[in-house]
Amino acid sequence: MAEFDYDLFVIGGGSGGVRAGRLAASMGKRVAIAEEYRFGGTCVIRGCVPKKLFVYASQFPEHFEDSAGYGWTVGETSFDWPTLIANKDREIARLEGLYRAGLERAGAEIVESRAVLLDRHTVRIVKDNRTVTARHILIATGGRPTEHPALPGHEHAISSNEAFHLEQLPASIAIAGGGYIAVEFANIFHGLGVETTLIYRGKEILGRFDMDMRRGVHNAMEAKGIRIICPAVAHNIGKRADGKLAIELSNDETLIVDQLMLALGRSPNTEGLGLEAAGVETGHIGEIVVDDYSRTNVDNIYAIGDVTNRVQLTPVAIHEAMCFIDTVYRDKPTTPDFDAIATAVFSQPEIGTVGLSEDEAAKRFDELEIYRAEFRPMRHTLSGRQEKMIMKLLVDAATRRVVGAHVLGVDAGEMAQLLGIAVKARLTKDDFDATMAVHPTAAEELVTMYQPTYRVKNGERVA
Amino acid sequence: MAEFDYDLFVIGGGSGGVRAGRLAASMGKRVAIAEEYRFGGTCVIRGCVPKKLFVYASQFPEHFEDSAGYGWTVGETSFDWPTLIANKDREIARLEGLYRAGLERAGAEIVESRAVLLDRHTVRIVKDNRTVTARHILIATGGRPTEHPALPGHEHAISSNEAFHLEQLPASIAIAGGGYIAVEFANIFHGLGVETTLIYRGKEILGRFDMDMRRGVHNAMEAKGIRIICPAVAHNIGKRADGKLAIELSNDETLIVDQLMLALGRSPNTEGLGLEAAGVETGHIGEIVVDDYSRTNVDNIYAIGDVTNRVQLTPVAIHEAMCFIDTVYRDKPTTPDFDAIATAVFSQPEIGTVGLSEDEAAKRFDELEIYRAEFRPMRHTLSGRQEKMIMKLLVDAATRRVVGAHVLGVDAGEMAQLLGIAVKARLTKDDFDATMAVHPTAAEELVTMYQPTYRVKNGERVA
Repeated sequence: MAEFDYDLFVIGGGSGGVRAGRLAASMGKRVAIAEEYRFGGTCVIRGCVPKKLFVYASQFPEHFEDSAGYGWTVGETSFDWPTLIANKDREIARLEGLYRAGLERAGAEIVESRAVLLDRHTVRIVKDNRTVTARHILIATGGRPTEHPALPGHEHAISSNEAFHLEQLPASIAIAGGGYIAVEFANIFHGLGVETTLIYRGKEILGRFDMDMRRGVHNAMEAKGIRIICPAVAHNIGKRADGKLAIELSNDETLIVDQLMLALGRSPNTEGLGLEAAGVETGHIGEIVVDDYSRTNVDNIYAIGDVTNRVQLTPVAIHEAMCFIDTVYRDKPTTPDFDAIATAVFSQPEIGTVGLSEDEAAKRFDELEIYRAEFRPMRHTLSGRQEKMIMKLLVDAATRRVVGAHVLGVDAGEMAQLLGIAVKARLTKDDFDATMAVHPTAAEELVTMYQPTYRVKNGERVA
Repeated sequence: MAEFDYDLFVIGGGSGGVRAGRLAASMGKRVAIAEEYRFGGTCVIRGCVPKKLFVYASQFPEHFEDSAGYGWTVGETSFDWPTLIANKDREIARLEGLYRAGLERAGAEIVESRAVLLDRHTVRIVKDNRTVTARHILIATGGRPTEHPALPGHEHAISSNEAFHLEQLPASIAIAGGGYIAVEFANIFHGLGVETTLIYRGKEILGRFDMDMRRGVHNAMEAKGIRIICPAVAHNIGKRADGKLAIELSNDETLIVDQLMLALGRSPNTEGLGLEAAGVETGHIGEIVVDDYSRTNVDNIYAIGDVTNRVQLTPVAIHEAMCFIDTVYRDKPTTPDFDAIATAVFSQPEIGTVGLSEDEAAKRFDELEIYRAEFRPMRHTLSGRQEKMIMKLLVDAATRRVVGAHVLGVDAGEMAQLLGIAVKARLTKDDFDATMAVHPTAAEELVTMYQPTYRVKNGERVA
């Protein structure tokens, strides 16, 4: 008789947990995976996927406008929010089904319940009021939008979770935050016709990205008609008799809007998980503390994904899951590789980026060559749209290695994915230069910038 | 007194000639450049650029259709061909002005005339009826759509040149040819509402591309409503009393259409250039024969671009121009590098490709791993469009090197540009695998295909 009911018990059915559970089960391990809400996690249910679908929806007005320069006349257009929500929900349900089917096909047992640790090997299935045991436990419970109980009137605000299920599209919205979620939603709502204001406490939105990208998105958003107030914070939210919200800002202005969305960070889902009972250590915002192999201080308990508050990205959680499998089940201890992670912000225009920002690179390298191009993409020569693309390569002068690549504009996310291969493989500017252009594309600019635009020596920009 | 009037006389103001002339002039060389028509060459005036603008124009109907699944209702749309032509012509004129301005700023003398060689150092400026001498002569006169005098009724047909200037959009068109120009125009005309038929003599369109790409485009075009007849050729073209054309095909069918466009190859522009007088050797289709350094058999005369019938692509002509400058003026003999040229076909869906096709690779490598994905891109989950993307990586099993990468679908050209860096730098599948996905993108599929779909051993597909 087996010592434990399962080889692996996974808590959390998001991208990381599902990948780990599916792989372990397909190797013949006895696996159970518990999810109290819906399989797919933040990414599928209320993150990347529905967000990107909303981005597509919000881009059509620009397509309609751009068509005029190409000879098209478009009759009156209208948008129906409930149609978008219903079609989005159907697609999400389909994806959720794929996640479940993948688990079932691999032989994992699906547990539709909250699961709570009782000790390092014992889990209580709350819905069934039963306990099971497992040799290994993997916690992949993810995160959620941070609540703000200290903000007076916070109960009138929504988070991104609710934004995916609003019964009707507001006429106006304020979004508090300057991270990618706030910026993406500001562009989505604006594109769908909502009067949109972004409120951010910092000096410039999208901290940690390259400053050219940050300023470029900021300027483009304002040019579209999105109001950005920064630095400023909301002090108080009042609900008026007419149902509108009155948001008092630190700059003494009061905004009157239909909705307020708070996008001020995310918190790991660790409350009520039984971590104390199992002896699992958590950090200062409640995240599970793990070592380089995603192992907690309790040696049979691992944690991956957003709950560990490392890099909060779906592909990273999946990568951590695959490293976990290698480490625990393939006798091949593998640490997740967080170096040169390419990423995208689905703002409008998009940001695609990999490697260091100019500010970071300037600190690490004695001399940088900066190759920078700013141009109107061909598609906008006839549309008349003034939006510019910005492309930037940062090159360590000593080694010629491309240490950062940044793109602002249409398809930047797709470009970042493939630039990511080159930057991750530590290719040099000479490798870029040796590549023939593909004409006419926007990306050809990335292989035809032969002369540095400027240099940065010892942290200072020089001609 | 200088021995010659000019250090360099360039014949032809296309991408290759202009780049060479501009660079040489900016180095202080005395340069003249002769162009009898318009600066910019095929690419700017009647090739890549106006073609891509037409592609954009032709894509709007799908945007309009796709919007419905995202909640949009679009009123009646209409298209005005003269508006597109006028806006396109204005943009082309702007680009032509940039080409001229670049030459003038660098100090090159612009000669608006046909130029004919009298001997290896002497050029006659036809318009002014004068002669000048030059130490070096660079021939960059490009190519043109091949004429077909042997085809009865060929005078009723147009080429791509005329397609850019049609006074009105035909209701129906037949296009003869299966190369990228034929395929791109078939999609353009269809997208603009023209009943379109493609006639190709071969078994499958787009010879030399990977067969998955060829079949994928073929199927997608037919699904859109483009009729493709192959293998078949036009035997006779008659003009009917109603102005329509009757095209008799080798399959005994007669097509009745408003226009016929022939896109059956391109010919180098070498007639009447005085090549015999200068002693410059030409090849079997009239192309100028050059050595690895783009030098003709006459050692002070060079030729670059389409007139040499090597690789007929704008970036290649520009690359040849830069190698010419290095070789002749920088004492750094440099041969153009034709290895692993990334390229795109702006069909709908697009093809982006770099490296070998599967058929070619199967001949060169003992064992190949083929990674292949076919999927509906996220944007079409809500649009309901059935068009699939296809992505393929070909890996030499012995070295793990990615020897071919092929993408069919939206943004394939942008992807090919950046895949080009990786393939040109001879990166391995492990480099691709080590790259974190950017989610949600289409390109992430290229870094997340962990298991080969099948293998090819000694030219045979195995499981």
